[in-house]
Amino acid sequence: MKMDHKGLFITFEGPDGAGKTTQIGRLAADLEKRHIPYVLTHEPGGTEIGDKIRTIILNPENLRLTQKTEILLYAASRSQHVEEKIKPALAQGKIVLCDRFIDASIAYQGYGLGQPVEMIQSINRFASEGLTPDRTYMIDIAPEAGRSRLRERSGGPETGVTEAAGDLDRIEQRELDYHRRVREGFLTLSRENKQRICLINGEDSADAVFDHILKDFHYFLAGYMQKG
Amino acid sequence: MKMDHKGLFITFEGPDGAGKTTQIGRLAADLEKRHIPYVLTHEPGGTEIGDKIRTIILNPENLRLTQKTEILLYAASRSQHVEEKIKPALAQGKIVLCDRFIDASIAYQGYGLGQPVEMIQSINRFASEGLTPDRTYMIDIAPEAGRSRLRERSGGPETGVTEAAGDLDRIEQRELDYHRRVREGFLTLSRENKQRICLINGEDSADAVFDHILKDFHYFLAGYMQKG
Repeated sequence: MKMDHKGLFITFEGPDGAGKTTQIGRLAADLEKRHIPYVLTHEPGGTEIGDKIRTIILNPENLRLTQKTEILLYAASRSQHVEEKIKPALAQGKIVLCDRFIDASIAYQGYGLGQPVEMIQSINRFASEGLTPDRTYMIDIAPEAGRSRLRERSGGPETGVTEAAGDLDRIEQRELDYHRRVREGFLTLSRENKQRICLINGEDSADAVFDHILKDFHYFLAGYMQKG
Repeated sequence: MKMDHKGLFITFEGPDGAGKTTQIGRLAADLEKRHIPYVLTHEPGGTEIGDKIRTIILNPENLRLTQKTEILLYAASRSQHVEEKIKPALAQGKIVLCDRFIDASIAYQGYGLGQPVEMIQSINRFASEGLTPDRTYMIDIAPEAGRSRLRERSGGPETGVTEAAGDLDRIEQRELDYHRRVREGFLTLSRENKQRICLINGEDSADAVFDHILKDFHYFLAGYMQKG
């Protein structure tokens, strides 16, 4: 669903370690250079209340957090984020760059954990008041490669998934099979939303990935400006 | 929907100031006296994670908390509560006495705030995995009387609703019209669920209210024991 706004809502999705955060930062720098007004934000969190919710979700001490509670907390954080930050920025005509959105909930909690995808979609449609990204950059990477990058980042040993947990958070500590299901979820979403989702090979070099994103983004922006 | 368990799930509902907390405490004392195993709990909260969520919901500083976020946080707290505390207690054959449950979300966020009742029901069915109370004591009170009791409790002045806020939390500070809609919501729920909900006049004396609850509860318990 396309909302009635002048801004553009761009999301970055993909498995852990795919390089989303690097790439969204580079796109923000490009907008900055061109003096295009933008907001760079992320989920979970993105607002003061959302950050408090994020703390509950990601705290490794909250071992008893149930899967359904996790789904509802992500949705709560998202709802606050959409109403307090994303929609006002879009209404001002800004480009909103958001690190993760509803696709992540469907991939992680739906495909990854096996919770009902339709229910997750329904809860999130409610949470986001039907807001859908105008364009989504989905950076794909095999779980083995993604986790190897996370290990380098956290400085943990490379002897195995569990032992290598190091500074990885509760979500990142989950086992490899889970991450394989999550990746399949992202790929399924990209097949089901070809108009919206631009799928990118995250195993290419960071420069090659950014080149792909930037070309697509400028092409997309030109088309959008013409229509607007 | 009746779950497959041996315990009994009893909830207390009704507007603020109706005396729920007093009455549920008295019923707990009665069970204690009779050596009937029970768990006394409440929403929002009831678990360590739920208490963290409760803090976000009820903190008067969180002025920007949106209505949808509030609904989702209540559901998240409930989901954790059901899986971590209520269902295990029921599985052990205990009587669970719970101060507020799904009816409260429907009355406060649905009828009170005007958020979609069916969506709130759907989200909460997901959160509670379809768990429905076996018996609900709904203590009815007119908002004026309920708020007058809250004022006495908080020791605030009696010059008007807003000025009398005193130590009332963010939810309790909301205006009287809202509380009238909430009460209507509770009454509607009691009409729609006559089998489950026992409606009680909360403007009677605390002794009279408890007498009503105890008689109904023992009658209900006897019927339940025969069936079981």
